[in-house]
Amino acid sequence: MSDVPPEIETLIERMAKLPGLGPRSARRAVLHLIKKRSQQLVPLAEAMAEVGRTARECLRCGNVGTGDLCAICQSEKRATGEICVVEDVADLWAMERSGVFKGRYHVLGGTLSALDAIGPDELRIPRLVERIADENVTEVILALGATIDGQTTAHYIADQLDGVKVTSLAQGVPVGGELDYLDDGTITAALNARKAL
Amino acid sequence: MSDVPPEIETLIERMAKLPGLGPRSARRAVLHLIKKRSQQLVPLAEAMAEVGRTARECLRCGNVGTGDLCAICQSEKRATGEICVVEDVADLWAMERSGVFKGRYHVLGGTLSALDAIGPDELRIPRLVERIADENVTEVILALGATIDGQTTAHYIADQLDGVKVTSLAQGVPVGGELDYLDDGTITAALNARKAL
Ligand SMILES: [Zn+2]
Ligand SMILES: [Zn+2]
Repeated sequence: MSDVPPEIETLIERMAKLPGLGPRSARRAVLHLIKKRSQQLVPLAEAMAEVGRTARECLRCGNVGTGDLCAICQSEKRATGEICVVEDVADLWAMERSGVFKGRYHVLGGTLSALDAIGPDELRIPRLVERIADENVTEVILALGATIDGQTTAHYIADQLDGVKVTSLAQGVPVGGELDYLDDGTITAALNARKAL
Repeated sequence: MSDVPPEIETLIERMAKLPGLGPRSARRAVLHLIKKRSQQLVPLAEAMAEVGRTARECLRCGNVGTGDLCAICQSEKRATGEICVVEDVADLWAMERSGVFKGRYHVLGGTLSALDAIGPDELRIPRLVERIADENVTEVILALGATIDGQTTAHYIADQLDGVKVTSLAQGVPVGGELDYLDDGTITAALNARKAL
């Protein structure tokens, strides 16, 4: 649209790239923000710039944080000897919302996928193997989605981890379901009913 | 979630206030942005700040622009004597996408609504009456939604404008429909078949 100021056109284009937003909802969101310039647009721009300046990937587990280590890796309380392996940070947050897991995490950054040519080195699997050796790990809990790729990844990881108990979330994860969609109760049930692989 | 850095928590909360996004889609969007820090997060924050610095409401028509007058009001080509009255800027953009209207606009900023206690002074109606006197206006085209409030507003405006031809979009606007949802062809048909009020 030639008569829309280029600054606004640019903002709409960038907003439309967000997951869950298309061109139409991006236009709506941008007009909403312009109407609420001081209450919403300016604070949102600042919050975004602040995350751009501070957000970092935890060197140990792959979670997001603001230092070399995330808050969970920094907390000695979380050194229970249990590591929960998740596909991504959204799944870690879903586990944390359930409040049932007290240990630390390992964020793979995806699942093995022949179709997308994602092998073990594209994921954080070698780092997980190192952690088993370095930390006093007593149990690795695989909290991966009940998808084909998720389960392939779970079995591959179980094969890599010798001499440590490996379990996986069992009851409650619906077939084909993704962890981040589950309610807290389902996650709690699945964790409590975990079984040895 | 206590272990999410406060900077990220703040960004999620602010994103969740956007129309069309809830807490879950805001979390997804923020994680997506953090993953694409340099390609998406930083440019989006800058685009947003830039719009915050530059976006202004056109003093004449209420459209968004970057100066006292919007690009359409600045363009002498658009001084056709026709003014198209729309509810909001999203509707103005929808009209512009159809490309069929060559005149200028007047953005009301909503519709009259007894329920929401929105009267003529809450809208840009007095300014429209002034424009009829100040500019060489030959026709006012009411492009309001086919809702009860939209049609009430259309009739109120027609009553206020003496001595100028007032028409309204007719054919093509579905009953209960909002302008911004229509395709370009429907808008074109509705404009071409406009009828005198
Ligand atoms: Zn960590
Ligand atoms: Zn204008």
